[in-house]
Amino acid sequence: MDQQAETGAIKNLEDMSELVSLCKRRGYVFPSSEVYGGINACWDYGPLGVELKRNVKESWWRAMTDRTDIEGLDAAIMMHPKVWQASGHVEGFTDPLVDCKKCKSRFREDQIDAALVAQKKCPSCGGEITAPRQFNLMFKTFMGPLEDSAAVVYLRPETAQGIYVNFQNVLQTSRQRIPFGIAQIGKAFRNEITPGNFIFRTREFEQMEMQYFVKPGADEASFETWKELRFQWHLSNGIRPEKLRLHQHAEGELAHYAKAAFDIQYEFPFGWQELEGIHNRTDFDLKRHEQFSGKKLEYFDEVGKERYIPYVVETSAGCDRTLLVLLVDAYRAGADRVWLKLHPKLAPYKVGLFPLMKKPELMEYTDRVFADVRKQFRTFVDEAGSIGKRYRRQDEIGTPYGVTIDYDTLSNHTVTIRDRDTMAQERIPAEKICQVLQERIESWKP
Amino acid sequence: MDQQAETGAIKNLEDMSELVSLCKRRGYVFPSSEVYGGINACWDYGPLGVELKRNVKESWWRAMTDRTDIEGLDAAIMMHPKVWQASGHVEGFTDPLVDCKKCKSRFREDQIDAALVAQKKCPSCGGEITAPRQFNLMFKTFMGPLEDSAAVVYLRPETAQGIYVNFQNVLQTSRQRIPFGIAQIGKAFRNEITPGNFIFRTREFEQMEMQYFVKPGADEASFETWKELRFQWHLSNGIRPEKLRLHQHAEGELAHYAKAAFDIQYEFPFGWQELEGIHNRTDFDLKRHEQFSGKKLEYFDEVGKERYIPYVVETSAGCDRTLLVLLVDAYRAGADRVWLKLHPKLAPYKVGLFPLMKKPELMEYTDRVFADVRKQFRTFVDEAGSIGKRYRRQDEIGTPYGVTIDYDTLSNHTVTIRDRDTMAQERIPAEKICQVLQERIESWKP
Repeated sequence: MDQQAETGAIKNLEDMSELVSLCKRRGYVFPSSEVYGGINACWDYGPLGVELKRNVKESWWRAMTDRTDIEGLDAAIMMHPKVWQASGHVEGFTDPLVDCKKCKSRFREDQIDAALVAQKKCPSCGGEITAPRQFNLMFKTFMGPLEDSAAVVYLRPETAQGIYVNFQNVLQTSRQRIPFGIAQIGKAFRNEITPGNFIFRTREFEQMEMQYFVKPGADEASFETWKELRFQWHLSNGIRPEKLRLHQHAEGELAHYAKAAFDIQYEFPFGWQELEGIHNRTDFDLKRHEQFSGKKLEYFDEVGKERYIPYVVETSAGCDRTLLVLLVDAYRAGADRVWLKLHPKLAPYKVGLFPLMKKPELMEYTDRVFADVRKQFRTFVDEAGSIGKRYRRQDEIGTPYGVTIDYDTLSNHTVTIRDRDTMAQERIPAEKICQVLQERIESWKP
Repeated sequence: MDQQAETGAIKNLEDMSELVSLCKRRGYVFPSSEVYGGINACWDYGPLGVELKRNVKESWWRAMTDRTDIEGLDAAIMMHPKVWQASGHVEGFTDPLVDCKKCKSRFREDQIDAALVAQKKCPSCGGEITAPRQFNLMFKTFMGPLEDSAAVVYLRPETAQGIYVNFQNVLQTSRQRIPFGIAQIGKAFRNEITPGNFIFRTREFEQMEMQYFVKPGADEASFETWKELRFQWHLSNGIRPEKLRLHQHAEGELAHYAKAAFDIQYEFPFGWQELEGIHNRTDFDLKRHEQFSGKKLEYFDEVGKERYIPYVVETSAGCDRTLLVLLVDAYRAGADRVWLKLHPKLAPYKVGLFPLMKKPELMEYTDRVFADVRKQFRTFVDEAGSIGKRYRRQDEIGTPYGVTIDYDTLSNHTVTIRDRDTMAQERIPAEKICQVLQERIESWKP
C-alpha cells in the first residue's frame, strides 16, 4: 500500500459530511423528497449514483451468474404472510424500543450504555426511560380493499426467503444438481428505530444475496470458500485491503438460523461495520418452510440414491452499503482538488472529453472523437471553463481519464490523456484513444 | 409479414394458459410463494425470466440514457406523503368498488355492464350490489414505531413523481439545458381491485418511465417525436407490427394531469390493451409541487432570458407488461414442437451447445468451445437425451441458435449450427462460431 495514496482520505465524520455534500452537489445521492424537507433516512440516487449502482450490481451479478452452478431469481417484494411466520420474522425480528418520558427521544435499548439502562436514564436528557417493548421491524400493509388482519402483508425484510420458497421451482426448471446456488438482487425494507449514517442504514435498501445449497457435511468447506470469494470480490472493486476485515460472530452473536457467521467489515469513519454477511444457515429455513407449508423441500441425490434437506451457505451484501464503501474509500482531498479514486470499471463516466476552447474547429473534432469513443465508454463532454477547472470537475466525480483536444490535435492528430489519480499527462495519437483507455482500465491498480 | 410465421401463434386464452404453463415449467415465471398456495397476482421471475427482464431493462435504459439529453435517476419507493397530495393521488387515485350482498363477490363498478349497474345487479349471481365506494389504490404503511396518521407513508403508485421532485437537483447537477429528460426504472405498487391476466395487471410491478422537460409550446412537437420513438422501440424488440397500434385518449378518457395521451396497445388474447402510455402532462405536476412545497420549480432560459415552468412529455412503460408482450408475441406451437421466437438480443440464452453423445472426446471438445463462446454469449450446455429432444428444449425457452459437436468435429473442426425459427442447419468451422453468432444475432429479422 502506497502511503502517498492515503493522503486526504476520509479520517473522521467531518470528512464524511464533505462526501455527503459532494454526493448531493454532483448528483450521486440526493435526500429523498427534498423539496418537502426530506423523509427520514430515505435517499435518491442521482444521474451519477444510478450509474455507479448499476455498475456495482452488474459486477456482483456477473461474479455470481457467470458461474455455471448459480441461477438467477427475481422474487416479488410482497410474499405470503406465512413465509414470515416460518422464517421467524413475525415472532423474532424485533428491536427493544425505549422512550424517554421527559424529552420524548426514542432509542434502541441495546444501543444505550448499559449503566444508563440499569438506571433507566435517558442518554440525551437524563430523564426516566420506559421499560423496553419489542418492536417488529417489518413494514406491514394491507392487500385488497379491507384493512383487516386477513389481508396483512409485509414488505420483505430480506430477499433470502424468496429464494428458499422457490428452491424446488428453480431446482426442477434449471436441472441443476447440488451443490448449486440461487442469486438475487432486490429491495428489502426494515422499519429501523435508528437509521442513519447517510446510506449506511436506511429503511429501504437493496440487497445482493446468494444462497448456496450443499449436502449436509459439505457446508463448512463451502462456507470457507464463499468467505474467501466474497472478500476477494470487494478487493476486486479496488477497496483498500487494510480497510477490510473478517469478523467472526461469537456464539452469543449468532442469529437464530446460523451455525456460523462472518461479517466482512469496513472501517468507516464511524467505526468497523458490516458490509456483507456470510452465514451457514444450515437446513433451518428449508425445514421451517416444510413444516409451515406441508410441502417437501428435499433433494434427491441420484448418485448416492439418498434424500436430504440441503444446508445453505448465504452471502448477503448490501448494495447501498457497497456504494457507500466505494465512495468513502475513494474520497481524497488534496491541497487544490478533491477526487474520487473509484475503480475505473465502476466509475459512472470512464472519460471526459475537453476541447481546449469553444472554437468550431475544435468542437467539430471533439464531436467526431465523441461519436467514436462513446460506443465503448460512457463519455462526458465538457467545454465550459478553464481546462484546469474541467479536470477538477471530472476528478470530483471520479472520471478516471480526461482527453483534451487542442490546436496541435488539428495538425498532428494527437491528444493529451490525463490520469485522474496521478494527474500525469501523455500525448497519444487520437486514433488510439479507445485502445489506450481499454488498456488503462484493465490494468488499473488501486 | 410472412403469414407462415403466424402458424401456431397465440390466438385465444386457451393458448395463453399454455404459455403460462410453459413459463412455470421452464423457469420464466413462477407463482409467488407457491409452496404456501401462492399470493394473489404476485409472480416471481425464475432463472430465465430474470435474464429476459434484465435484457429488456438494459435495452430500454440504453435507448434512453445513451442520448446526451437524458439523465438517469433511481428514487426511493417511499416518499414524503405530501408528494401524493400534490400529485392528486391521495384525493383521486381511486376505483369505484361494489360488493354483491348475496355472493360477496367484489367488482370495479366501471368494469361491469352499464345495464347491470343501473339495475344494481351482480354480474356473477344476479344478487343486489352495494352502492359504489371510492377505494384508494395506494398501499399505505407506517414509518417509525407508531401506527398513527403522522407516520403514514405510501408505496409509490408511479415512479414519475420521484422525477418531478428531483427536477431541480438533476438540472443543477447535470448541467443539462431544456429540452432534456430524466429516465427511471423501478417498482411501483397499486392495490388493484381486480388484478389478473398473468403478469398483465399485478399489484407490484416495475415501471420504465421517462419525463422529458420542454419549453411550453414545444410540447406538442416533442409529444409526436416520443410517440414515434417509443413505438419504434417496441418494434425493435421484434414485436409483430400488426399486433401493435396507437390509441388516442378521447377528451373524456384523459387523466386529470394530461392535455393529450396516446396508448401503445398490443393485441393480447384478451383484447387490445395498453402496453405503454405517452402523455403530455403539461406543467401540471411541477406547478402542483411548487404549490404544495413552496419551492420554486422554474427553469431559467439563459438564451431567451426568461423563466418558466417546463412542460413534460412522459413515456411510461410497464416492464412486466413488456415481458408479457414479448412472450405472448413469441409463442409458437407447431405439430411437433413449441418455440419462443424471441428477438435473439433479448433471449436469455443465445446459444445451446450439444455434444452429440456423452463421450469424453466430445465432452472435452464441447468444454473448449464453451469456454470460448461463453465469454461473449450466454450459453447453455446440454448433453442429456437425444439431439432432437435437446433442440426442442432450447426451442421452448427461445434460444435462437444451437451448435452440435459430433465425431466429424473431432476430425475436421466443423460444427452444425441450427436456427430456432427455420430449423435450418449449416456446417461451419468451429473457429467461426462466435463470428457467425454475432452476425446472425445482428441481422435477425422477426
